[in-house]
Parts: sequence; structure tokens; C-alpha cells
Amino acid sequence: MSLTDRTKPTDVCLNTDLYELTMAQGFWESGLADGEACFNAFFRDCPFDGGYAVCCGTGQIADLVENFVFEDDDIAYLAGVQAPGGGPMFKPAFLEYLRNHRLDLTIHAVPEGQVVFGREPMVRVEGPVIDCQLIETALLNLVNFQTLVATKTARVVRAAEGHPVSDFGLRRAQGPDGGLAVARASYIAGASSTSNVLAGKIYGIPVFGTHAHSWVMAFPSELEAFRAFAKSSPKNCVLLLDTYDVHQGIKNAITVAKEMEAAGERLSAVRLDSGDLARLSKEARAAFDEAGLPYVKISVSNDLDEYTIQSLFAQGAPIDSFGVGTKLATCDPQPSLGGVYKLSAVRREKDEPWTPVIKLSEQSYKRTVPGVQRVVRYYDQAGRPTADMLVVDEVARPGEPREMVDILDPYLVHRLSGEPKDLLVEMVRHGERVGEPEGIETARERCREALMRLDPAVARFLNPQTYPVGLELGLADLRSRLAREERAESGRPTV
Amino acid sequence: MSLTDRTKPTDVCLNTDLYELTMAQGFWESGLADGEACFNAFFRDCPFDGGYAVCCGTGQIADLVENFVFEDDDIAYLAGVQAPGGGPMFKPAFLEYLRNHRLDLTIHAVPEGQVVFGREPMVRVEGPVIDCQLIETALLNLVNFQTLVATKTARVVRAAEGHPVSDFGLRRAQGPDGGLAVARASYIAGASSTSNVLAGKIYGIPVFGTHAHSWVMAFPSELEAFRAFAKSSPKNCVLLLDTYDVHQGIKNAITVAKEMEAAGERLSAVRLDSGDLARLSKEARAAFDEAGLPYVKISVSNDLDEYTIQSLFAQGAPIDSFGVGTKLATCDPQPSLGGVYKLSAVRREKDEPWTPVIKLSEQSYKRTVPGVQRVVRYYDQAGRPTADMLVVDEVARPGEPREMVDILDPYLVHRLSGEPKDLLVEMVRHGERVGEPEGIETARERCREALMRLDPAVARFLNPQTYPVGLELGLADLRSRLAREERAESGRPTV
Repeated sequence: MSLTDRTKPTDVCLNTDLYELTMAQGFWESGLADGEACFNAFFRDCPFDGGYAVCCGTGQIADLVENFVFEDDDIAYLAGVQAPGGGPMFKPAFLEYLRNHRLDLTIHAVPEGQVVFGREPMVRVEGPVIDCQLIETALLNLVNFQTLVATKTARVVRAAEGHPVSDFGLRRAQGPDGGLAVARASYIAGASSTSNVLAGKIYGIPVFGTHAHSWVMAFPSELEAFRAFAKSSPKNCVLLLDTYDVHQGIKNAITVAKEMEAAGERLSAVRLDSGDLARLSKEARAAFDEAGLPYVKISVSNDLDEYTIQSLFAQGAPIDSFGVGTKLATCDPQPSLGGVYKLSAVRREKDEPWTPVIKLSEQSYKRTVPGVQRVVRYYDQAGRPTADMLVVDEVARPGEPREMVDILDPYLVHRLSGEPKDLLVEMVRHGERVGEPEGIETARERCREALMRLDPAVARFLNPQTYPVGLELGLADLRSRLAREERAESGRPTV
Repeated sequence: MSLTDRTKPTDVCLNTDLYELTMAQGFWESGLADGEACFNAFFRDCPFDGGYAVCCGTGQIADLVENFVFEDDDIAYLAGVQAPGGGPMFKPAFLEYLRNHRLDLTIHAVPEGQVVFGREPMVRVEGPVIDCQLIETALLNLVNFQTLVATKTARVVRAAEGHPVSDFGLRRAQGPDGGLAVARASYIAGASSTSNVLAGKIYGIPVFGTHAHSWVMAFPSELEAFRAFAKSSPKNCVLLLDTYDVHQGIKNAITVAKEMEAAGERLSAVRLDSGDLARLSKEARAAFDEAGLPYVKISVSNDLDEYTIQSLFAQGAPIDSFGVGTKLATCDPQPSLGGVYKLSAVRREKDEPWTPVIKLSEQSYKRTVPGVQRVVRYYDQAGRPTADMLVVDEVARPGEPREMVDILDPYLVHRLSGEPKDLLVEMVRHGERVGEPEGIETARERCREALMRLDPAVARFLNPQTYPVGLELGLADLRSRLAREERAESGRPTV
């Protein structure tokens, strides 16, 4: 996708699925324009067969809401869209309603960098049902992918055991936005830098990069290429060893490192981008140490992910830093979070009580949780999260909850202890941002702390422990009753 | 990624990996600013274990080149980037050189929609080595993902056997650009429409969409929800059957279809989005036929890809159209094309002869092809492609080629016959677009024809036949000689 195809950077309102607009028109025509709804954005299963995810993208929701305006050219385009059965898809009066319509939404969300688990709301959107639909696709587009990348990065950074990880994924991303999202989310989740210069400019993320194979090939010899790069970038010199033959590359790099020493400079590192990285990194380390160059670091790249990095360390590879590209940017092997946005309550208008609703479907794993939900996270004395409970205040049993029903298994009850805290934070109130925009560094620090406090049994890659997520007992009763009645009547029961 | 993070829609020049800029500075400082290079963008293996790919994104290269300008704010950002070893990363004089620098590139590429195969150049870039580096990342960012999506779509459309396929992938894409790229590339490769409204506005792609589960849940009963939608969108009415119970949903849809008939309208279709689509589509078909509603079409969605669609038809599912989202937008199970950009020739300055170069590496599958290559495609009398041959004119053997050496296996020789035509087309000459921009419909028609003429043995999903791609005999000799000499010397031999 070329950046140049955008007519304007704020073309937010049409970044949506058509059905959001046909539904909006339908609500408007059905006299439900004042009807209010509550939607939750969540994913069902943690990605990568893991035990957790890292929430990301929620810090940009307020921007999205504040910039959501249908301008004249948007309305003109919509006026020209034809219905398959003939005639215009949208009525002129509805388009006039949309023109300069502002979203009157109140949105609570999990702060960026916090860990989250399957089926609990990451974002809760309340307000006019039309507005809730209008923002659905753009919100999912914002949160789904960034949460996936942040989660992937947290895993890669964990595998790297404190060694720096740099995002190299831009060329394999889905256009410039994909690249920016990868850089932003991966930095929040613990990456040290990015190769993406635009992300450096927009977000202030540290940028990193030296030279490619083409640099070496453009000179008559590798040695001349190394010398030229050292001369041009003595303070940022990482030499790539594998253009022709790694062993000759090591020799040439040692020659240049010595020449740099003589000139009062230091070769920062060498990089390996192909071959057996475990063996080659050991050979390079030994050669540099023997040459009296213990400070020259070894960096590697080439289709890395959390598993290859773990394997390299298991083989004793003396690697100092990692460039991770394709598998970070594409979140291989699971390129989609499967995040959804589901209605959980409705009311005829503002200030009326909510009516909780449920979606069933033939597949029980797609069953939703009804009501306007809070998420309460319980922490032990060391500040480590122990359980997350969904609560709908209107149906909650009186008194301090001592147990909850598992969100997937109605026969499984979890005991609760420790200090409860609300997980969702109000980010938008009636269409306006609550508080100041949060810096990316704040989110990054939150993520570092959250991952540090996460139970290692939940964090491990292989067969992680399932973190307890459940329903407050009153909510569990409500869900069970609604599911039975809905199935019986195929219409919404009253509560 | 929020659209609102972009400071300007044309922020093209910094959509790059930092090393392109450090190398550009290095070339400039090494007195190689006049040095010229030839790079090829290609992928090594066809995605999805398939036998072909559909080239896409190349139609936007001229836009990219023409809009590639470092503006004052870009230069100001670069001036502030610090080197890891201290001090500014870029020298002021180099940044002055970049300011308003225009790319003096000449670019040949495979037209969009054409089929391509592994290891042959999809894009050939010639010009100042600095310019070749500056455009690398943005070009790969443009071509890699769109080619992957176009290829995935061609497979899905093939499986759909002429039934319409609509792109539903926006919410799972990597931000707005990802969504736009999916919509554009999938339309070129044969999708009939997209749910993405912005893609409709920007590219004129037909948009499609009706209602979601939330529509049904927002009304007191499913029947009321169906009635309200039919009333609001009688010319675009597709009812979603699986919010509560599909069998009740079918009954409610029949009721509403009869009411629409009475009002002189027609229910267009119903959609199934969960459960056993094979069984449920048969039940729905039987019920609508029995109710005298044979015109009501059946549409399905829910994690579809080419294999599930094939399986549905193999089970005799009477499905009329498909909405394909997640697995199209993420190109599951292979979210990356692995497209690369490799140097193949250099010269000290314009109009000098080219020196071919080769990259070796420890992994033989990463070995490149040297020289400024043309790609010649041979066609049989029916216009079907039979073989692609890479040629470097300066080393080509005299006379009409009768055979070529396989690009992977030096012992395998392919005979050539039929009519040869150049595959690469000049798209940019010295930084300026050649010819008029091509419409998306032209690319779509080219794709339709190319896929129609592709050998079914190459197109099939399971164990496709390998389409012959090879080297002209003189080029095969050159490659073999360069590989031997390079390995021996670890420096570039003269030719």
C-alpha cells in the first residue's frame, strides 16, 4: 500500500466495514437512534498457544474517537454507493445525519502494556448504538494487531534473556501502518529499538541499523567495503559477515577492528544473517577474543522467533543482540488475534437501566457474556495478579466475593483472595479524551512491570498454566439463565 | 495503527529501514555517489506451497518514486538521531544532500495481475546506488504483502468455482494500510467486492455489507430485527441466521421474505457465520426452496480459506457466495512472502558497462543471480506460458536459445519452444513515470486472463507441478564462474 493513496491522514470514518453504515442507517430509520448499547472487544484464546497477551493499541482509542468525522468528500462518496438491488444504498437524510456527526461514546479499556487474558473485555464501549457500530471496525483494526504484535514481542524478549531485541520487520509488514504498528507495539512490549525510521520520527522510538549485503557487494572487495563503512560510521559500526564466506568475513572484520583501534575508534559489533548461527557465533566469538577484541559484540538475524532464540542459548551461542523481522511483523505462526466486538447490553435511551443480552451460535465457544461488565483483577501481597473476575454490578451477589465460576467451564469454581482492583480505565467520556495522552515510555514501563509480576507458569511457552478468569456468581447465574431462555425463544428475554 | 498518527499522507521517504540511510551516507562519503547499481526484488519460493504467485503492488511504484522527497521536518528528525557510540548519526552535509534529493531511478517490473514464479525478478531497479538503497524498504513494503494477498485470493477464488468472494478482512489487517492493501490486491486477483468502505472510496472497488449479530441482539426479537433490516435496506437485504438458533433463524427469514414479497421486494440472501456450514447451508436451501423462495441466495463466512471452500463444495453445500476475512487479510498460514531485494550489478558511473555481482552465503538457496537481467516468458500457440528464462544480454550466447539451465538445479536443462516475450515492463525512467497510470480494472482483467491460461497442473493446490524457470546458457556459465571465484577470493572478481 502506498502512503500516497491516502487523500488525507485523518480519513478515519470510512476505515470501516460497510455493514457498520448499513446498520447505522437501519437504527436511525427504526427510531433507535437514541438507543444505547454496550459492546466489548475481546479475544477468546491467548495467541501462540500462550498463557497471556499484552494489551496494545488502546492508548490510541481517544485519538480515533476525537478524529472521527464524516467530511464532505466522505458523504459524497457514500451518496454514490449503489445497492445491489438498485438505487442508492444510503438515504440522503441519513447522510445528512452523518455529516459532522460526532461519536458520543464512553470507553473504558485496559491500559497499554498490561497483561490480559482470553474472553475478558479489553475495551468496553458504551453509548448510542449507532456510534458503537460506527467505531467497531476501526477500533478492532487498532487493537487486534497491536495486541498480537506486543504479545509476540513479549515472548521474543523473554527468550532473549535481557539481550536487546530490535524490530526489523518493516519490509514484511502490511504497508506503512503495519510497519508503524509493529514498531510501536514491539517497543511497548520490550523491544529496544526499531529499524523503522518513520516510527522513530513519529513515536520517538530509538532507531537502529547499519549496512546490508548490498553494501559489501557494491565494493571491489569485502575488506574495502568494511573499511569504507568503518570510516563513514565509526560510532555505529556493525559489520555484516556473511555476504561471501563467514570465515573470511571474520578475518576482514578483525583487520578493520584493529585499524579502527589505531584510529581511536571501536568496532561495535558484527552481524550474522545466515547459516548455522549457533556454530558461527561461537567461531566469531572465539576469533574476536583471540584477536584481543572481546568488546566486539555479536548480533544475529534471519527468521528468528522465540523458539530459535531459546534454541541458540540452549546451544551456548554467545550472542549479544537480536534483529527480529518477518516473524515479529507477521506474528508467525498466528497472524491474527481473532479479536471480536460483541454486544452485551442495550437500553432504550440514556439513564435507563441496561438490559443484558447474549449471543449463542451453534459453537459454544462463541457464547458471549451478558451485561455491562467490570473486570476485577486480584493481586497477592507481592503485587502479582492471581485471578480476573467479570462483574455486572446490577446482578452481583451482596458482600465480598470469595469465589467465581470459570468463564469456560461452569463446573469449575475458583477461590478468590488478595486485593481487587479494576482493570478497565475510563479513556473517553461522551466522545472526549479523559486525562492527558500517555507517553509510549509509560506504557513500556507498565508492560515491564506486568511481565515481571506474571506467574512464570503462565508465561512459559510450553503448556502454560491457565490464568483463572471467571464470572462473579450473580453474573454466572444471569448468563446461564439467558442462554436457556434465548435458546427456547430465539428472541431476547426480559431480565 | 491510527491513521491520525501520520503527520502527512506523503511521508514516504522515512518509511524505511535505518540502514538504507546509513548506507546512503556511506556511499556518499566514499565518493560512490555517482556509482550505479542494479537490484532485483524477487521471492524464492511460491507461497502456500503453491506453484505460482500473482504479482501485485508494482502499479504503485511510480507513485512511490515521484513522491519520494525529504522535506524539512524529515531532515530535522534525521539531524537529531544519535549514533550508539555518541554524536549525530548523520553528517550535516549529507543531510543537505538529501534535502530535496530526487530519485533518478529506472525501474522495470512485472505488471500487476500477471503470474510470477520463484527467483525471477518481479522488479528491477537501476540507477545511483544511493537511490537504489533509499527506495528498497518502501518498495518491498509495497510489493511483498500485496503479491502475497493477491496470490492467496487467486487460490480462494479458484476454490470458489465462479461464486463471488468478498474481502471481509479489514478488522484483522495491520492497520488501515493493511486493510487497503488487502482490498486492492484481492480485487485485482478476482475478489468481487470488499467490506472496506475506504477502499471503495479510494480505488472504486464495489463495497458489500449488510448486518452483524449485534443488529439482531439490539432488538427485542430476531423477527423484529429482520423486519427492521428488510424495511431499512430492501435492496441490500442479507439476513444473518445464527445469532441464536439457525433453525429458528431460517423460519424468521422465511417469514420476512414472504412479507418482502408482499411489499414488492425480494430478500437477496441469508448468511451463515458459524457451525457446520455444509449441513446448515443444505438445510437452509431446502427450507427456502420448499417455501417457494428459490431466489434467496446462501452466503457463508467464518474463517474460510481455499481448503474449507473446496471441502464445502465437495460435500455438496449449495453455497452462492463467500465472505473471506481473517485468512485472506493475514494470508494464513503463510503471512509473509519472503520477498527480498538483491544487488546484481554495479558500475562506476552512468553509461559504463555493468559488472555483475553475486551473493553466496552458507545457505545455497540464498545464492543470487548476477547481472542486469531480462525475464523472457515463452508462450505456446494458445497463449499459455510454458517457461521463463532469465537473460543477461552482455553474456548471452549468440542465436535463438533452445534450452536453459534450471535456476535451482544446474544439472537440469529445460527445452524452450514457442514465442518469447519480455515479462518486465519499464514503469519509471530516470525518476519519472512511463505512460499513464493503469486502472485497477486493467490489472484485474490481466490477472483473470493469466490465471485462465495457467497450466492447471501448476495452479492446483496439492503438489503443484513446478513451472520451469531457468537461466540462459551464457548466464548460467557466468553465475557458476562467479560463485567459484567469489568463494575463493571473498572479494568481487572482475568479469
